[in-house]
Amino acid sequence: MTTHLDARRDHACLIVHGPDRPGIVAAVTALVARNLGNIVTLDQYSDNPVGGEFFQRVVFHRPDLPAALPAIAADLDETLGPLDLEWRLTDQSVPKRMAILASTSDHCLLELLWRHRRGELPVTIPMVISNHTNTAEDVRSFGIPFFHVPSQGPDKSAAEAKIVELLKDNVDFVVLARYMQILSDSFLDELGVPVINIHHSFLPAFIGAAPYRKAKERGVKLIGATSHYVTADLDEGPIIEQDVARVTHAMTAADLQARGAYVERAVLSRAVEWHAEDRVIRHGNHTIVFT
Amino acid sequence: MTTHLDARRDHACLIVHGPDRPGIVAAVTALVARNLGNIVTLDQYSDNPVGGEFFQRVVFHRPDLPAALPAIAADLDETLGPLDLEWRLTDQSVPKRMAILASTSDHCLLELLWRHRRGELPVTIPMVISNHTNTAEDVRSFGIPFFHVPSQGPDKSAAEAKIVELLKDNVDFVVLARYMQILSDSFLDELGVPVINIHHSFLPAFIGAAPYRKAKERGVKLIGATSHYVTADLDEGPIIEQDVARVTHAMTAADLQARGAYVERAVLSRAVEWHAEDRVIRHGNHTIVFT
Amino acid sequence: MTTHLDARRDHACLIVHGPDRPGIVAAVTALVARNLGNIVTLDQYSDNPVGGEFFQRVVFHRPDLPAALPAIAADLDETLGPLDLEWRLTDQSVPKRMAILASTSDHCLLELLWRHRRGELPVTIPMVISNHTNTAEDVRSFGIPFFHVPSQGPDKSAAEAKIVELLKDNVDFVVLARYMQILSDSFLDELGVPVINIHHSFLPAFIGAAPYRKAKERGVKLIGATSHYVTADLDEGPIIEQDVARVTHAMTAADLQARGAYVERAVLSRAVEWHAEDRVIRHGNHTIVFT
Amino acid sequence: MTTHLDARRDHACLIVHGPDRPGIVAAVTALVARNLGNIVTLDQYSDNPVGGEFFQRVVFHRPDLPAALPAIAADLDETLGPLDLEWRLTDQSVPKRMAILASTSDHCLLELLWRHRRGELPVTIPMVISNHTNTAEDVRSFGIPFFHVPSQGPDKSAAEAKIVELLKDNVDFVVLARYMQILSDSFLDELGVPVINIHHSFLPAFIGAAPYRKAKERGVKLIGATSHYVTADLDEGPIIEQDVARVTHAMTAADLQARGAYVERAVLSRAVEWHAEDRVIRHGNHTIVFT
Repeated sequence: MTTHLDARRDHACLIVHGPDRPGIVAAVTALVARNLGNIVTLDQYSDNPVGGEFFQRVVFHRPDLPAALPAIAADLDETLGPLDLEWRLTDQSVPKRMAILASTSDHCLLELLWRHRRGELPVTIPMVISNHTNTAEDVRSFGIPFFHVPSQGPDKSAAEAKIVELLKDNVDFVVLARYMQILSDSFLDELGVPVINIHHSFLPAFIGAAPYRKAKERGVKLIGATSHYVTADLDEGPIIEQDVARVTHAMTAADLQARGAYVERAVLSRAVEWHAEDRVIRHGNHTIVFT
Repeated sequence: MTTHLDARRDHACLIVHGPDRPGIVAAVTALVARNLGNIVTLDQYSDNPVGGEFFQRVVFHRPDLPAALPAIAADLDETLGPLDLEWRLTDQSVPKRMAILASTSDHCLLELLWRHRRGELPVTIPMVISNHTNTAEDVRSFGIPFFHVPSQGPDKSAAEAKIVELLKDNVDFVVLARYMQILSDSFLDELGVPVINIHHSFLPAFIGAAPYRKAKERGVKLIGATSHYVTADLDEGPIIEQDVARVTHAMTAADLQARGAYVERAVLSRAVEWHAEDRVIRHGNHTIVFT
Repeated sequence: MTTHLDARRDHACLIVHGPDRPGIVAAVTALVARNLGNIVTLDQYSDNPVGGEFFQRVVFHRPDLPAALPAIAADLDETLGPLDLEWRLTDQSVPKRMAILASTSDHCLLELLWRHRRGELPVTIPMVISNHTNTAEDVRSFGIPFFHVPSQGPDKSAAEAKIVELLKDNVDFVVLARYMQILSDSFLDELGVPVINIHHSFLPAFIGAAPYRKAKERGVKLIGATSHYVTADLDEGPIIEQDVARVTHAMTAADLQARGAYVERAVLSRAVEWHAEDRVIRHGNHTIVFT
Repeated sequence: MTTHLDARRDHACLIVHGPDRPGIVAAVTALVARNLGNIVTLDQYSDNPVGGEFFQRVVFHRPDLPAALPAIAADLDETLGPLDLEWRLTDQSVPKRMAILASTSDHCLLELLWRHRRGELPVTIPMVISNHTNTAEDVRSFGIPFFHVPSQGPDKSAAEAKIVELLKDNVDFVVLARYMQILSDSFLDELGVPVINIHHSFLPAFIGAAPYRKAKERGVKLIGATSHYVTADLDEGPIIEQDVARVTHAMTAADLQARGAYVERAVLSRAVEWHAEDRVIRHGNHTIVFT
């Protein structure tokens, strides 16, 4: 659970993914052992014992990790290549660079900035971009650069180009902290890094705009929030985390929205933490989450 | 909370419903007082302070209640009629008669029978009807009559006619405890009493058949169950209660179904208890639930 | 649920408390009606139908409320006095004045400041007092005065005298937002207003210091937080709200503390909101909470 | 999650436990691989990266498992002995034999019998023993033998001797399903198998008798239940699982008890399922639970 980066010195995270077959775990753990690593945590999952897909996350401690990374990578290529397995190796002491896109609402944005300041999110935050200016002062009080990129009118291409210019090669992933603009497919393509969104409903219920109003109209007894990777299909990307809160007939749509804000910020924070710690593996329209 | 019927002797439940205006609460409580009642609980809700709809539930203790009911009813007519208010008065010591319709699944059915035997549901259960026979022995071991009404082939009219024949005038409400047959509008009309269903998803997500399979396909992180009144629109009736349980990527659709069964039986039991205690007021496609 | 003060203009909250007997609700609602009030919400509870204690909370709308308050108060004296009932009448548009005492931890403090800025807490915050200085800048960035009152050494009387000097007659209640000093009985007496604390365990489990360490030692599977009124008996005051979070064997005591911080801030915020809205009635060592 | 025994054919569960050191995971997984096993799930935990204790649970599929077990066991002895590691190997298709001890309350007892009938608990139930007779008919309707062992008077030794006589060598573990008798240390010693209890509070709150009455007196806002292994210290054994439910001031101690019954049966069922699936490892006064 500890996310402080100094506790992660010389810790590597290895993600392995591919067709399941006997002996993968033995091959991987032997590889870690011969590279002088001591396994700290190991999670694995196969979606079908026969002909299924295999997913593994191994965190290991290895003295002088940075110097050893090239040799471990070469060993991984040689060992896992013949098994058709993909792998990803990261130094856990190197924080991912996370940009935040926001609009007027501040609850998800400030929650992330505040958790980051407490040392609970293993990321750096090179910038916050908003199509409004109301949160600029708060953001900068955390020592984080703020950029205002207005997004008026039907043509969003200028705004998107400006955002890509700011983000390109500067970030490892992007979080939409209640950013109220729909992103184009070409924007996502150009960006080329994962984008995490928070949707203010328990998807797939109340897809699209104004979910709290729709929830009030339907008379539900629970409201929810969903954090997911953004794909070309609006509100259809792989779900990372969801949660709900109890509501009553006596609450207005505005009350649902106020209550829901607390679910949103908690759900998004968990999703961001798990992504930053390489605990989430995407597979088709699903996620494997090793918590 | 206590539902034992002897604790409810001489307790009346009064439901008042209609256009909100100043003085309703005073009028109702004065009426209770002059009829020698002592208010035990009082809940009220107005969906809009200006021009809204008013809902009230009052439970009061009145010695010799059965003898006093006609006079109280006459007073209610006289007092609330001019205010355009509807009212419903019930003797809380008279249990509602509840029939259960089931299919092969026994988890919701047995939970209701068992809670009833513990004295936790203020109902009588005149019969259980199923289109299968596998639960017959269990049902009868609780001392409850069991009727088998098969429902094969596309034409359900004979089965529905048989069910109406059994239920008509014998029950105050009907519970579908995972009854896997769609009921026709004319059946609901003829029956003329409220019908409560349990849907095995967090509505409005995964409307229709096979919700656990759909939940697995969508990769949700929570599954749910919804109890609602049955209306002509499938899965669209007023929601009484909902709840969820956490699931993971490692669970199969069958696992979701097994886990969900425990949510279903809890949600349905709460909905039935609240309906039996006159805690649920229907209003359009919503419910007011005074818990 | 809406707490915005302009929505509370001309809304009064009446708390009635005393020996239960028939007719109280009728007497109170008739009083509200003849004083031209329209009841918005009414909650009541009797802890025993025979010879019990009666508790009621009525919120009513009354045009020109401020001008009418004296006459309503006189009517309450005259009507409820003979029934041995205590009452308390407040103008809901007048926010309570809340001081916060804090130490180095900022999670509960900032949560309250931030909810206040969002307009979700119907209070003013005349000051934050801390025995440390690390939160001064954050507090002042919210436009709230910050006072540093150090509290070193075994004798706390000078520090307590200084705090009383700052608070006396300036506040309606005090919140201990993880204030890590034990307050003396004489301090509480002199202060003369309610004091709300957040304890970082699910009381009565793990009373006293270091509850997360004790929780780890005992191997519990849930940790909790408890908000309660402060009394002379440490950790024994009337509980307002509690909640829990799931933990596992893999979490260290520090992990429990980090996880628990999110429970603490949520529990304390709810307790503060309910107290500020006159939803909490103290009775002996219990609270009646009308939510 | 699936617990059906036919799905567990040729599946072994290996528990490894001892001092942590580099290479254990590699040694174990290599052992599984050379014995032709394919790892299905693997969980591990070390309570301290330096000088800590290591815990591992591996489930692997191995064709013709029963015939291969002796050779695997010999390999385990040879491989893990030099590393000072303890191990336990079980054939997952062989259900554990579980006896239930009960008193008058039936909620935990019937829940276990019913989950067993649904195929959700991988156990056989050779007998139910009670110091009362009220549940005899229900138990036998599930096809399970019922034995009545009265336990009156202060001297429990005759009753305990009778129970040991029934259980000795016939069961793998014992569940106290609200069995209201305190068991002596000598009884536990003689029995020699794990005993799982359900305590009707959120331990360590409200240790001892009448926890719901104590919870009402303290005015808590949540009640709970705790399942733990029974040790010589009453209510102090290693906790397996806990959960809570929300309660209000309006609920009596009897209401808390009724609500709590549903928490108890859920908590005990989860603890039993996890124990039966070898997911729980005891270590001092703690449990490692791999779910």
